[in-house]
Amino acid sequence: MVGHAFMGAAHSHAWRTAGRFFDLPYRVELAAVCGRSPERTAQAAAKYGWESYETDWRTLVGRSDIDVIDICTPGDSHAEIALAALAAGKHVLCEKPLANSVSEAADMTRAAELAEAAGIRSMVAFNYRRVPALALARQLVEAGRLGTIHQVRAQYLQDWLVDPEFPLAWRLRKDRAGSGALGDLGAHSVDAAQFLTGQRITSVGALLETFVTERPLPAEASGLSGTASAERGEVTVDDAALFTARFDGGAIGVFEATRFATGHKNAMRIEISGSAGTLAFDAESLNELAFYDRTQDQDTAGFRRIQVTESTHPYLDAWWPPGHLLGYEHTFTHQVRDFVAAVAAGEDPRPSFADGLQVQRVLAAVESSAAASGAHVPVHPVP
Amino acid sequence: MVGHAFMGAAHSHAWRTAGRFFDLPYRVELAAVCGRSPERTAQAAAKYGWESYETDWRTLVGRSDIDVIDICTPGDSHAEIALAALAAGKHVLCEKPLANSVSEAADMTRAAELAEAAGIRSMVAFNYRRVPALALARQLVEAGRLGTIHQVRAQYLQDWLVDPEFPLAWRLRKDRAGSGALGDLGAHSVDAAQFLTGQRITSVGALLETFVTERPLPAEASGLSGTASAERGEVTVDDAALFTARFDGGAIGVFEATRFATGHKNAMRIEISGSAGTLAFDAESLNELAFYDRTQDQDTAGFRRIQVTESTHPYLDAWWPPGHLLGYEHTFTHQVRDFVAAVAAGEDPRPSFADGLQVQRVLAAVESSAAASGAHVPVHPVP
Amino acid sequence: MVGHAFMGAAHSHAWRTAGRFFDLPYRVELAAVCGRSPERTAQAAAKYGWESYETDWRTLVGRSDIDVIDICTPGDSHAEIALAALAAGKHVLCEKPLANSVSEAADMTRAAELAEAAGIRSMVAFNYRRVPALALARQLVEAGRLGTIHQVRAQYLQDWLVDPEFPLAWRLRKDRAGSGALGDLGAHSVDAAQFLTGQRITSVGALLETFVTERPLPAEASGLSGTASAERGEVTVDDAALFTARFDGGAIGVFEATRFATGHKNAMRIEISGSAGTLAFDAESLNELAFYDRTQDQDTAGFRRIQVTESTHPYLDAWWPPGHLLGYEHTFTHQVRDFVAAVAAGEDPRPSFADGLQVQRVLAAVESSAAASGAHVPVHPVP
Amino acid sequence: MVGHAFMGAAHSHAWRTAGRFFDLPYRVELAAVCGRSPERTAQAAAKYGWESYETDWRTLVGRSDIDVIDICTPGDSHAEIALAALAAGKHVLCEKPLANSVSEAADMTRAAELAEAAGIRSMVAFNYRRVPALALARQLVEAGRLGTIHQVRAQYLQDWLVDPEFPLAWRLRKDRAGSGALGDLGAHSVDAAQFLTGQRITSVGALLETFVTERPLPAEASGLSGTASAERGEVTVDDAALFTARFDGGAIGVFEATRFATGHKNAMRIEISGSAGTLAFDAESLNELAFYDRTQDQDTAGFRRIQVTESTHPYLDAWWPPGHLLGYEHTFTHQVRDFVAAVAAGEDPRPSFADGLQVQRVLAAVESSAAASGAHVPVHPVP
Repeated sequence: MVGHAFMGAAHSHAWRTAGRFFDLPYRVELAAVCGRSPERTAQAAAKYGWESYETDWRTLVGRSDIDVIDICTPGDSHAEIALAALAAGKHVLCEKPLANSVSEAADMTRAAELAEAAGIRSMVAFNYRRVPALALARQLVEAGRLGTIHQVRAQYLQDWLVDPEFPLAWRLRKDRAGSGALGDLGAHSVDAAQFLTGQRITSVGALLETFVTERPLPAEASGLSGTASAERGEVTVDDAALFTARFDGGAIGVFEATRFATGHKNAMRIEISGSAGTLAFDAESLNELAFYDRTQDQDTAGFRRIQVTESTHPYLDAWWPPGHLLGYEHTFTHQVRDFVAAVAAGEDPRPSFADGLQVQRVLAAVESSAAASGAHVPVHPVP
Repeated sequence: MVGHAFMGAAHSHAWRTAGRFFDLPYRVELAAVCGRSPERTAQAAAKYGWESYETDWRTLVGRSDIDVIDICTPGDSHAEIALAALAAGKHVLCEKPLANSVSEAADMTRAAELAEAAGIRSMVAFNYRRVPALALARQLVEAGRLGTIHQVRAQYLQDWLVDPEFPLAWRLRKDRAGSGALGDLGAHSVDAAQFLTGQRITSVGALLETFVTERPLPAEASGLSGTASAERGEVTVDDAALFTARFDGGAIGVFEATRFATGHKNAMRIEISGSAGTLAFDAESLNELAFYDRTQDQDTAGFRRIQVTESTHPYLDAWWPPGHLLGYEHTFTHQVRDFVAAVAAGEDPRPSFADGLQVQRVLAAVESSAAASGAHVPVHPVP
Repeated sequence: MVGHAFMGAAHSHAWRTAGRFFDLPYRVELAAVCGRSPERTAQAAAKYGWESYETDWRTLVGRSDIDVIDICTPGDSHAEIALAALAAGKHVLCEKPLANSVSEAADMTRAAELAEAAGIRSMVAFNYRRVPALALARQLVEAGRLGTIHQVRAQYLQDWLVDPEFPLAWRLRKDRAGSGALGDLGAHSVDAAQFLTGQRITSVGALLETFVTERPLPAEASGLSGTASAERGEVTVDDAALFTARFDGGAIGVFEATRFATGHKNAMRIEISGSAGTLAFDAESLNELAFYDRTQDQDTAGFRRIQVTESTHPYLDAWWPPGHLLGYEHTFTHQVRDFVAAVAAGEDPRPSFADGLQVQRVLAAVESSAAASGAHVPVHPVP
Repeated sequence: MVGHAFMGAAHSHAWRTAGRFFDLPYRVELAAVCGRSPERTAQAAAKYGWESYETDWRTLVGRSDIDVIDICTPGDSHAEIALAALAAGKHVLCEKPLANSVSEAADMTRAAELAEAAGIRSMVAFNYRRVPALALARQLVEAGRLGTIHQVRAQYLQDWLVDPEFPLAWRLRKDRAGSGALGDLGAHSVDAAQFLTGQRITSVGALLETFVTERPLPAEASGLSGTASAERGEVTVDDAALFTARFDGGAIGVFEATRFATGHKNAMRIEISGSAGTLAFDAESLNELAFYDRTQDQDTAGFRRIQVTESTHPYLDAWWPPGHLLGYEHTFTHQVRDFVAAVAAGEDPRPSFADGLQVQRVLAAVESSAAASGAHVPVHPVP
């Protein structure tokens, strides 16, 4: 595993835990974690249960005792590491967004498709697909329970940047993060919208905004928090991204990703309306799915609050009795389970790098549209 | 009162009821109702408590015993009636949207401003301003409880057109209604957004969609329901309107108005996020306002569900003890109260025709933008 | 109508309004209101739209131009007025609880049953039966949608007595009000529980508590508010009533009625669980009914939030389009509609005085049980 | 660890995970798991990560390489194992309820108090105390944010017994489980009520009910599910327990524990109302706490939905950014953290066996009261 910050902690827990609840075809060994600082990486290895550590990802990729490379670094290093890992014949799990640019993502996708022929698997970590409620939502859409899909409404609302003195962390720098709320949050919404509907976005019209354009440079930053120094630097990414979209199946959608929605901590919400029903999800009620079934008798029709904790629900046969909730971190546990299962089965796991590239193209079109007064910009689909 | 369908029933109840709960400066007399069919208008007069009826609005406007003309007809006749009524020295209350075009709305606004000099009052019936929860929201914004406003998110979700066999009622014909979800629903959202923030929209980028382009002609239509005939006609308005907006105070906003949001009956929702707090409202929980106060201690911060039923809340001193809810129809009762109070006080009631014109310009810009691939179109502010 | 405080205002609105939305078999005339103070009663008559007023209820009952006596006074005068009105051949609508004692209620029931033979109708005003959501709930129970009913959980939570300086209004005096939270709030819960389940309570085990035993005497009291004087008096009723119950159909129930539930304004909640489903209601979401249907497919089972605003729902064909909410006061409008319809049809309206007596017996048993350490006390059913 | 069913899986995860997120003073080693079947215990050891296994708990207790005995068996074996473990000088963590009878619990408490002198620690596993939201609730009560506490309302609603064909698992047999919903669910409510209020229950008045008195014998049972055989047996425990309570600080409470609340899966709800505020919790929204603060300005007062996911909230500094939810299993992780911390600090962890005994006395009083028609039965406090 490369990287050991927020995502590294979550992925470590997943690798440690997946086999304790699910019957995996392989026994997972936490071979090595990689970071730049020897001291902090050694600490992370001990803390998270990795058997060894490296301080150069090239060494990690070169180790013959390692089968899987899990990339948990900021987006600017994804391409380089993933290309090397695939070339070295390692299966690759890569955090989202796949890369900081379409061309990098396209390179990675090409490499992944070549590697696939040699039985090497790759997957991009849009972990929300592994929320049981969203996995159930996809099943219901596939079963036709929504009929023809008309509309998508997606919000991803956070508020950690409302304080103008919050420091200029790497997530606020275009060279590290690629974009702001758009790539960090909007990427999840775009992937979820395409995953749930089974339709791909064909054009977008967008408005990006940066409310606070200068922030204190961080004395030291980690995760979503940090300490400020006296100097200031320029914020080079968006604080909020708003866009409308058209889908190839005839649906339309409206998207909002923001770090300025005061009071909302992690409201990753998505709602899909079709001719036969509507599904709605909010990550702040992670174990619930709302469903309106237009085919039921009108007198008792209403949005149902499905507690997605029944043993028949996706992933739930491995867990607790009904009504006992699962936390955010098990989206990663489920991701490991599906990734390992796909590797064992010789199947390509989804979301593939091609899925990640498709999301990247949408994000790029959003930026192009915003630069062009919001006029709709086409998104060329990944074949 | 001209018109006696859905809005006519609501306005009649308001005129009958306002003086029973509020101390009005004038005694309200329900002099006459006007409709095209003598038989149905006579029935409406008896049913709703009007003392007489007319079948030509010109006669109504000419009656010397009448001080106020209340216009509850579809938008295509607003301008003509309002101009005549103002010319005849009647105070005018006009249903929204103010007109079916910017030029009509501009004419009406000019006439209203002229009449004003002569002590004649006019008002456009954006009744949601009279929901106690939204009136309270405006007070909180004015008191600075939100700080600097960053974002508006507004949805107006209905679902009565999901059935493709729903007939082609007047609300689906551009010549009668001006537009579809945009003018019917989006107009409320636009007015609420400008009212609550105290900011005006300066540009919009939009996408309009009509999912069902042909519908059965109505055998007979009334309100939001109707019976279908065998013939079909073209739907000439939008089923859904999505747009982003910029405001003159620096805020940005995202709007969705739709009649295809399966399961949502009248979800007029608006949320305003600022540097110090967030307010959120949903008309399906009409007596509630959600408020997040970022200035309170962090450990107990959270969205509060304010039950807007305290006697200190707007309009509530006239009603029931706390926790006893008010219905939709009292937005009209409050509207009558405020209108009558303004007439008596010799003040101009809000929202004025100028406010209605401002909304109309936003709606027109939405249509222009949608016709130009969604590129942002400026909205010239009403002076 | 006798009395013109909180309930008088609500009943007046109902009498004025019922015929404006429903097609009533009779034309309602608001003949006269009665109160003790000539001045205040004259004001009430003018305000609420009554044609005349009286200051002695005996005169009112004696007037030949009056067909219906509507009793909106505190419980200590219900019996006397109702008996006189029935004797005078007037139809009687009486506020709840029916009386302050079982023996008074029994006298009233006997008189009502005698009058019935002469075509004179009587009804007790448990207005929550006329909430559309609860009327729908009863229909669903009758249709067998809950299967065998196992459990009732009922709460009626208010908080207006938490302040120990709130004055000793009439509702806090046993001689005027009969009991405290028990009769004021618990009576609604008991009636709703018996109405919804179709079962009668056969025994109760109770605990009553008065948290604040002395309060300032009111300088002047009205409704639920009031001004305090310097003197103090003893609170002679319960602040909170907790009880468990057995029903004649095998169900068990738990009840809480309190005026000390800080933050709850009017949370009249009731939930009924059966072998096939559960229904839940909360008056703070007056237009909603939650329904869990155990017979639907398990994967999408969940509590549905039914918006009881469809034209097919009880009372709703007279009102607004779906999603447009009704307020508390229309429970009284619907009550008038049902009462007038029953009078015209020559049928006995429900809840009858016998239903009121049954509730009274339960309340009396609660008090007996509380006085006997909470041991279950039988409730002898009204035949 | 003794036992490896539902609780065993949860405890194993906790022992494996606590040190990965929290800085523990000791390194946790999963030495051995114990069960009756060699085959199934070996499987459990491998699955859950235990280094060895035993098939006789006496052997386990005798092993010198083991410092802690974690008891996850049904209640009928708690006393014997705990007494032996304490005698052998092992720290003991025991699942709730502490025992199946007051006398067993008293023996255990005495042994724990003796062992304490020798530095041996013991704790009963009321894991809901470790839900961050409830830990925060206790902090708020201790800080005086509720003022004088008046009322407790506690529900623990499940529905897994509604199906009369659900087999007679061990949780339905008095000899194994002690009682039914009362001990399984009500015990949590009683502990939470006493923990949150800081008051102890002094008397209870109760009603117990078994709706389905005969069920198919299980062919094979595990956890909350199972397969039915053709034979039937008698259900010897309660399906539902209702009781009222008095507390030593003047509060009163109402409790419902049931496995027949159709549609509710794990609704462990508790609400505490005081003179200055109210707190409410529902385990189906595990990461939230509702708080009404009566001291804030009346116009914006309302129940706040606190997302208990801030780094300043109890336990949360070890976890994810705000708004990222934790699951049920981490109540056990937190329990391990607190237990290990107390052992290291040489302090007695809470809830102690004495706390468990106090709960046991309440449960016993509930059964006595129910057997005596519900009259209130005193609960003698544990000194």
